[in-house]
Amino acid sequence: MMETVERLDEITKLLGQDGGSALLDFVTEIHPADISLCFSKLEEAQQRAFTLALPPQKIAELLPYLPTSEASEVLAWRPSSEHAAIFDQLNDDDLVDLLQSLKIGQSRAAIHLLPESKKALAQSLLSYPEDTAGGRMTTNFATVYPEMTIREAIENLRENAEITEVLARIFVVGKDTGKLLGKVRLRDLTFNRRSTHIRDVMSDETISVRAGADQEAAVMMMSKYNIFALPVTNQKSQLLGVITYDDALEIQEEESTEDLEKQSAISGTPSDERYLETPVLEHIKRRFGWVLFLALIAIVSGLVIKQYEELITQTIVLAVYMPMIVAAGGNTGGQAATMVIRAMSLGEFSPSSFAKVAWKECRVGILIGGLLGLCIGLQIHFLPVTTEFPEGTNVSNIALTVCLALTAQVATSTLVGALLPILAKSARLDPAVVASPAITTVVDITGLIIYFSLAKWILHL
Amino acid sequence: MMETVERLDEITKLLGQDGGSALLDFVTEIHPADISLCFSKLEEAQQRAFTLALPPQKIAELLPYLPTSEASEVLAWRPSSEHAAIFDQLNDDDLVDLLQSLKIGQSRAAIHLLPESKKALAQSLLSYPEDTAGGRMTTNFATVYPEMTIREAIENLRENAEITEVLARIFVVGKDTGKLLGKVRLRDLTFNRRSTHIRDVMSDETISVRAGADQEAAVMMMSKYNIFALPVTNQKSQLLGVITYDDALEIQEEESTEDLEKQSAISGTPSDERYLETPVLEHIKRRFGWVLFLALIAIVSGLVIKQYEELITQTIVLAVYMPMIVAAGGNTGGQAATMVIRAMSLGEFSPSSFAKVAWKECRVGILIGGLLGLCIGLQIHFLPVTTEFPEGTNVSNIALTVCLALTAQVATSTLVGALLPILAKSARLDPAVVASPAITTVVDITGLIIYFSLAKWILHL
Repeated sequence: MMETVERLDEITKLLGQDGGSALLDFVTEIHPADISLCFSKLEEAQQRAFTLALPPQKIAELLPYLPTSEASEVLAWRPSSEHAAIFDQLNDDDLVDLLQSLKIGQSRAAIHLLPESKKALAQSLLSYPEDTAGGRMTTNFATVYPEMTIREAIENLRENAEITEVLARIFVVGKDTGKLLGKVRLRDLTFNRRSTHIRDVMSDETISVRAGADQEAAVMMMSKYNIFALPVTNQKSQLLGVITYDDALEIQEEESTEDLEKQSAISGTPSDERYLETPVLEHIKRRFGWVLFLALIAIVSGLVIKQYEELITQTIVLAVYMPMIVAAGGNTGGQAATMVIRAMSLGEFSPSSFAKVAWKECRVGILIGGLLGLCIGLQIHFLPVTTEFPEGTNVSNIALTVCLALTAQVATSTLVGALLPILAKSARLDPAVVASPAITTVVDITGLIIYFSLAKWILHL
Repeated sequence: MMETVERLDEITKLLGQDGGSALLDFVTEIHPADISLCFSKLEEAQQRAFTLALPPQKIAELLPYLPTSEASEVLAWRPSSEHAAIFDQLNDDDLVDLLQSLKIGQSRAAIHLLPESKKALAQSLLSYPEDTAGGRMTTNFATVYPEMTIREAIENLRENAEITEVLARIFVVGKDTGKLLGKVRLRDLTFNRRSTHIRDVMSDETISVRAGADQEAAVMMMSKYNIFALPVTNQKSQLLGVITYDDALEIQEEESTEDLEKQSAISGTPSDERYLETPVLEHIKRRFGWVLFLALIAIVSGLVIKQYEELITQTIVLAVYMPMIVAAGGNTGGQAATMVIRAMSLGEFSPSSFAKVAWKECRVGILIGGLLGLCIGLQIHFLPVTTEFPEGTNVSNIALTVCLALTAQVATSTLVGALLPILAKSARLDPAVVASPAITTVVDITGLIIYFSLAKWILHL
């Protein structure tokens, strides 16, 4: 972090100087990923000056590393006569990311500026939704045919050597069909006789993903099979593009951020905006909805308490343990939900394993609940925090009530926490949506009902 | 998922047949990652029969994909005379993973069985903690010297072509010093004249990570700079090993599971055991600790309620809104914590940005709290759920109390939720430990105090 601060000071200083050559020299020594960190921390006027001080080629290097909103501002600051030159330098997947983030009019103008060769490509890539394999793929990949010799293949690849992102995996496709037939590694070309045919050195592995598949499915395949570059195909098994390891890392990071946020009642999709740079109103937009909804449901809990008003005023010690019953349910329900959601998102089981999960969490819930009930029951009996009881009740009955209520509440909550996400998934909802906060709110209500019913019955009130 | 079930049926059927050749034929057609999924679902006796039916080479292919506990069982079932042959087939990072998971005695015996060349290597790799860059690296990498010609380099690499995992990046090291000087791509060798020197085609990029660094730091670098294979060096900048993209994906997945679990009050490190295969007692061990601790703290909330006993019995409508005040605090605190923890783990800011985060969350908290207070205040005023008030109070005062309490509670909780993780981080604790459940429990207490104090003051009770 220290380094970013120092670089920022230097950039700020150089921005004040005439010309821009000192700034350019300084920036050339820094990796664009680090420049982008500095850029985000500049004031808007400085960002503008910085953008105007650099040649188009530097801007093209920087763009893929910037959050999309800043990238489109940078573009807007540069004269539109330069846009074509900038777009031409971008990899096609970075270009498509950028186009996707532009406002519709701006994006249409941008496509218009592309060279003909890229125009058709960008339009076809833009036709896939952003979060599908097709929306994330690059079309910079190398292909050869089985009938080629290694010499022909190398000649062929040499022409594209600089623009192809992925030369460690070269795909073999049918010359006429365009169908994916297998792959060769660059090493197979380098270390074999040049007269050998591709079909003799190729592997016929064709693990691939359909363009319409969810981006998460693509990453799961890459992670499961240790694949460096995953081919993306259409219904006819024709090779359309490739998802590379760096996209996989990015997708995985995005998906886990999304899971974490959903489990914390934050709605919407995380943008690539950095936390400190995201406006307050944007934060509120993503956080307020669930908070209001859950608050309204919490009124039900309150009405349950009101229902048992008399019981509570008679035996105030019951109120002392009320927050604990409620909290234990929320905590154990949340734990179970996290475990199950995670296992499902790693593809460990599908909703058909409902019964197995229920049986496992049933045992876990009863044991944790029983153990917790026992601990707290003993605490009440031997280390009571209050000794004021109404006539006719004694400490053992209170201890028994809390103990049984905790057991029942934890067992119920664990089961609800484990099964709600599975139900959500079989209803084709994202399981993470019904995670912790939603479960907590539901089991608050059941917990209070369990607790007060047991109290009425055991304490004869 | 359907496929796993079908494969499982077929394997179960083939296990019953004589010999094992039909089974071997079947298994040879399946990717080891898929075999491992089937294997985990077999009964123990079937797993044993399966293990004994395959040749050592197949076992070696399967081992890296199995959860470590199953892998060590498989090893135990095979005669120890075969272990050397199996170990010899494993990549060194997979071998070290396996050795790390064995019980100490078993692991010592295993190292004893290694060929001399691997013994020293395994011992040195085992000396790095499992979650550091050194503990995750592989030593199967290719190096060349700047003085070599491309022809010499290719000759040199050809000998190692099959055992080096990473030929897409070949590292250039000093001939005498072993220091990392840069890298060349296989394409630079393939597409240049064979008499060219390595120093003329190499790039002098030496982005690398120290062996003792956290594995998460390594992945962050790989993701930030789009690095496919990250060199791991010692203090003297000598090249020790490489972390490859597939390890990066695995580490990132592990770390995000760990974050999710910590934020759900699940302690310990997630094992690579699959959810359904993890014993119930193992689940309880990881979940019970926090549940008990948080339950004990919840007694404090209960005592606060008891403190305001009289107030509640006088104005039972206050009890109706009590769960909402409490829940809103937990939810908004959890949201803020998730946002801040995520931003910190992406390296967006360090604890030194304390003031900036506090200022941002202060505004977010007051706005969300105020908005929520307004909504609920209006609800109470115009759509009251109860009309029983004690003498002297009226619905506007109740609405005002709840509105102000919600604002104050949400603002406090948001601030606590955002700042506790930062404090934890500056105290060198993992910020995720103080996430949602811990924050919820703390703000439950503050929320009740805020609510009842305001009620006393506004309602003059």
